[in-house]
Amino acid sequence: MRDFERLEVQLSFIKEVDRIKSIFRKSKLFSAERHENDAEHSWHIALMAIILQEYAGRPIDISRVVTMLLIHDIVEIDTGDTIIYKKGHGHVEAEEKAARRIFGILPDEQADYFIDLWREFEARESNDARYAAAIDRIQPCLQNMHRGGETWREHGIKPQQVIEVNSQIGEGAPDLWKYVKRELDTLFE
Amino acid sequence: MRDFERLEVQLSFIKEVDRIKSIFRKSKLFSAERHENDAEHSWHIALMAIILQEYAGRPIDISRVVTMLLIHDIVEIDTGDTIIYKKGHGHVEAEEKAARRIFGILPDEQADYFIDLWREFEARESNDARYAAAIDRIQPCLQNMHRGGETWREHGIKPQQVIEVNSQIGEGAPDLWKYVKRELDTLFE
Repeated sequence: MRDFERLEVQLSFIKEVDRIKSIFRKSKLFSAERHENDAEHSWHIALMAIILQEYAGRPIDISRVVTMLLIHDIVEIDTGDTIIYKKGHGHVEAEEKAARRIFGILPDEQADYFIDLWREFEARESNDARYAAAIDRIQPCLQNMHRGGETWREHGIKPQQVIEVNSQIGEGAPDLWKYVKRELDTLFE
Repeated sequence: MRDFERLEVQLSFIKEVDRIKSIFRKSKLFSAERHENDAEHSWHIALMAIILQEYAGRPIDISRVVTMLLIHDIVEIDTGDTIIYKKGHGHVEAEEKAARRIFGILPDEQADYFIDLWREFEARESNDARYAAAIDRIQPCLQNMHRGGETWREHGIKPQQVIEVNSQIGEGAPDLWKYVKRELDTLFE
């Protein structure tokens, strides 16, 4: 490695993804009255996945789950944050294009690895993806419950929609969904 | 798990560590003119550790490295961010106390696991810790180089100190240090 060409390509990617620190989400922090950005969210759920792995409904590879969660929102550099209750079909295509552009900055075999892993996360068909998606869902849900459902009210999301969309938590982490469901029922009473 | 007591303890920890999103560092983002917080930094270096693992000087367990990096700055909730060039002995004791308080929120066996992992990172004696520390060092160094050494000038850090402190990168990732050293030499010319 005399000329660091490969490393410089990897560093271009590392600098490009820095931009998720400026993609702000709909939900607010637990600890401060401001919206959360995608880097903070990704850090938090990667750690949550480790702490809560005992609740995964099926055997998982925690290392793959954490990697999925670290990269899952990178596409939003191009597409922006969209509230999950309002995602349409055009959105899926835009995210696919973003994944190809952004991960495509990396050396070929790393680009392929991350695009595949991101698609696996989006498809929610493997155990790893289902558990990762459950953790990605439970964090904003807990944030929202922590603030009495503020963001849902602001965006006109009805209790029934909240329960429907978040029931996806149960696919990857059944006991976590039981807990969240109980808390939502109390909140919406 | 009828009463979710253990889960609620784990969620207390997850909410407590949210506060690292308000611990701002000395260095600024690559992509925007503002300081970076510890959650953003931790996300970035966890991902960098994965992307750059081929440069680890010795065999590493990337899953342990990533976990180390996700938790390494949590102690700063109690101690605040200290520029690496000015860390003293009292600081080490304060961090140890913070680790015991914050990870101590978790169920015992998880608390023990994370305190041990955090101490391993700080000690920089294992292959995993040396590589993790190299990645933790290289990120602010790249950010600073990206801005022509701005933060170092602001804090009166001399080129010789920059090279001395960052040469630690070479312990965990020799080729990354060769690259950084070349870039620093050009910058300080």
